[in-house]
Amino acid sequence: MSVDPVLAAVDAGLEQSLERLFALLRIPSISTDPAYDADCKAAADWLVEELAALGFDASRRDTPGKPMVVAHHRAEGPKMLFYGHYDVQPVDPLKLWHRDPFDPEVQDTPSGKVIRARGASDDKGQLMTFLEAFRAWKSVHGTLPGNITLLFEGEEESGSPSLVPFLKANRDELAADIALVCDTGMFDQKTPAICTMLRGLVATEFTVHGPNRDLHSGMYGGPAMNPIRALTRILAELHDDAGRVTIPGFYDGVEPVANAVRAAWDGLDFDGEAFLADVGLSIPAGEKGHSVLEQIWARPTAEINGIWGGYTGAGFKTVLPAEANAKVSFRLVGKQDPAKITAAFEQFLRDRLPGDCRLEFHAKDGAGATVMPTDRPEFERARRALSPEWENDAVFTGGGGSIPIVGHFREILGTDSILIGFGLDNDNIHSPNEKYDLKSFHHGIRSWVRVIDALRKA
Amino acid sequence: MSVDPVLAAVDAGLEQSLERLFALLRIPSISTDPAYDADCKAAADWLVEELAALGFDASRRDTPGKPMVVAHHRAEGPKMLFYGHYDVQPVDPLKLWHRDPFDPEVQDTPSGKVIRARGASDDKGQLMTFLEAFRAWKSVHGTLPGNITLLFEGEEESGSPSLVPFLKANRDELAADIALVCDTGMFDQKTPAICTMLRGLVATEFTVHGPNRDLHSGMYGGPAMNPIRALTRILAELHDDAGRVTIPGFYDGVEPVANAVRAAWDGLDFDGEAFLADVGLSIPAGEKGHSVLEQIWARPTAEINGIWGGYTGAGFKTVLPAEANAKVSFRLVGKQDPAKITAAFEQFLRDRLPGDCRLEFHAKDGAGATVMPTDRPEFERARRALSPEWENDAVFTGGGGSIPIVGHFREILGTDSILIGFGLDNDNIHSPNEKYDLKSFHHGIRSWVRVIDALRKA
Repeated sequence: MSVDPVLAAVDAGLEQSLERLFALLRIPSISTDPAYDADCKAAADWLVEELAALGFDASRRDTPGKPMVVAHHRAEGPKMLFYGHYDVQPVDPLKLWHRDPFDPEVQDTPSGKVIRARGASDDKGQLMTFLEAFRAWKSVHGTLPGNITLLFEGEEESGSPSLVPFLKANRDELAADIALVCDTGMFDQKTPAICTMLRGLVATEFTVHGPNRDLHSGMYGGPAMNPIRALTRILAELHDDAGRVTIPGFYDGVEPVANAVRAAWDGLDFDGEAFLADVGLSIPAGEKGHSVLEQIWARPTAEINGIWGGYTGAGFKTVLPAEANAKVSFRLVGKQDPAKITAAFEQFLRDRLPGDCRLEFHAKDGAGATVMPTDRPEFERARRALSPEWENDAVFTGGGGSIPIVGHFREILGTDSILIGFGLDNDNIHSPNEKYDLKSFHHGIRSWVRVIDALRKA
Repeated sequence: MSVDPVLAAVDAGLEQSLERLFALLRIPSISTDPAYDADCKAAADWLVEELAALGFDASRRDTPGKPMVVAHHRAEGPKMLFYGHYDVQPVDPLKLWHRDPFDPEVQDTPSGKVIRARGASDDKGQLMTFLEAFRAWKSVHGTLPGNITLLFEGEEESGSPSLVPFLKANRDELAADIALVCDTGMFDQKTPAICTMLRGLVATEFTVHGPNRDLHSGMYGGPAMNPIRALTRILAELHDDAGRVTIPGFYDGVEPVANAVRAAWDGLDFDGEAFLADVGLSIPAGEKGHSVLEQIWARPTAEINGIWGGYTGAGFKTVLPAEANAKVSFRLVGKQDPAKITAAFEQFLRDRLPGDCRLEFHAKDGAGATVMPTDRPEFERARRALSPEWENDAVFTGGGGSIPIVGHFREILGTDSILIGFGLDNDNIHSPNEKYDLKSFHHGIRSWVRVIDALRKA
């Protein structure tokens, strides 16, 4: 059975699909700001209504935070769990927006038509590609395409505090054969991507305490230990001259990129020079011997995200401060263990602490890297299904950031995730003037028709 | 003629002296912060009024920066120029103060009564010892004690930008036979000191620029240069493991302490361990092979007074910042040349700057070290006059800080300075909870009566 009639229905209904997306975009569902609490509920209710109208058994499921939207269509075949989020980032600074962030519009730009609004790309536009694919399918076949569960959350932009408890409490209802997550991007405008590697994250913060109070550098400068000096000397040792992290055991569990994967990445049209030039840089700062793409997707990092100590205001103050502080985070890959990295870093600091200094160390619970089981046949089936929709074939990519939902689905539900999304690097997500290419929306819907068709049967 | 009646008048008027000091301390004359501009003017006006009431020909002399206060009492005898400053250091971090820094109070402590307020010791409390000594003298003798000029500045804590032009423009009016500067400390609580060596000072501030905007460490961490990392690596090289500054040519002009001076210092009751223990430290952090006293008085330093970059608020933000900043100052000794040190440091930074970073460097005009002509008879006369007021005889000491005024008086006015002050190491100047011992204030006033009496006649 060809998907062509469904694809034709997508094309024919695009105007109406856009109207529905606009209705959702008009709801300012900013989850991090309590002032928008009712709007978050309204967005959830809107989705429940749409899903029910499509024939899903849909409900709003309240939590201590924002509600979840859960919908089922029970049928034969492998159970597919679709995930997206209906909440959006705050809009400030509002003055940098060229129009009301919650008054969506299709605009002509030099690179094509775009849907301009907060949430257009992250994640309402993406999430609606699911719904519109289902709708087109149903309009042609009279039924929904397979054994489907949807989970849309409303706290993704505010740390997802309710997610883990909700997954645990509803494990049987939500566990599926495969999860499909639409919250990532294309490799480029012509090349769809399935993100198969995500780096983990460990975040730490610490203080080096020296003298018991701020001192005058004239009176004490020389014999008194300056904790900023101690801090810079310690942090300077964090990387060697080749860009490698020097913490003992840091690379335990880091494996070289498989030759086949490396070959595939080498085949991508990725220009490391242009990637760096875009942010005003020209020299890859990561580990020598690894390409820019490998440095982002497949190599761990140690980054100083913040540093402060002493007098930082205008003018000069010849102070010898009592303390110096830093925030350091680590991106993890492979099987690097967040707890071990945290402990090894604390030990690294303590080993280098001068005798007269004291360390105060805090770490957030970290998350390890995620490597998708690309040997599961669904990955290659999804990749092949996606490819005909775009100029270039779909590629398996890495991702430098972290998408915690993938780990939670794996650990709590036992469900692997396939990450497919249609965002682009220039979508301005989390920034003013967010947009989603009309092409991303249109061909995103068509892409899901193809992928769902490829996965709906065992 | 005995000074005893004047000393008795000091004792009798101490309560009123304190009230006047409190009035001055209540004015938040923070010179480095433009928000306190009016307060600096108010402090100057307050002094002019007090001096005029004492019979001085006093005036506020406006400058492009904070005003000078100048007062004269013309009489026979050697002209004595008294110097102090009415501006104070900023108060941050305010949360570490146990009370409002500008609401002075006399407090009982285990080591005696103290005056608690910003500026109590540096330098309002010290400066007021002049005024109260004059007042007591006048109350007994009906006139002021000799040929007196006062110069109080309001920019000492912010680099004194107006001082040199002012001295040059008013050379004849201000030039004197001897200057008396009250901005230093006792050797210890029982031992008054005349500071005869002062370190110089160079202050710099710089920014290491990396990417053209703040980046997300998930997306860019690895290949993108982090300027905080560059900064820490550069600053970590500023000292070698023996505590020596590594800037090429830094020690040009530094000479070993003369044997006789070293012998005199060895005879002082100075306990380096106790000095450090008082601020919670135990290991001298300066150059190995030099005593704690030498490290403060006779060795140059490089100190990081402030550092900042990236996210420094609560929680975590995985940012890769566009820039990182530091303030670094140098204490100079002997014939070290401030301009050469500044240039050598900038070159030191540039030599270590990674290819993708850009340096923005600012330096304040520095001042070299000062060695006083202790063979002038006034030094020994002042030392002998001071001694009877305290448990121990007065001593000639070095000083770790910089009092650029001494060099300016010498170079511009041709006037040598005698530095006598009553601050103590634990006064917390430039720190929260600054104090001045009530004894320092009281016996400081009495000390000036004695010293002025010893110097007022040729």
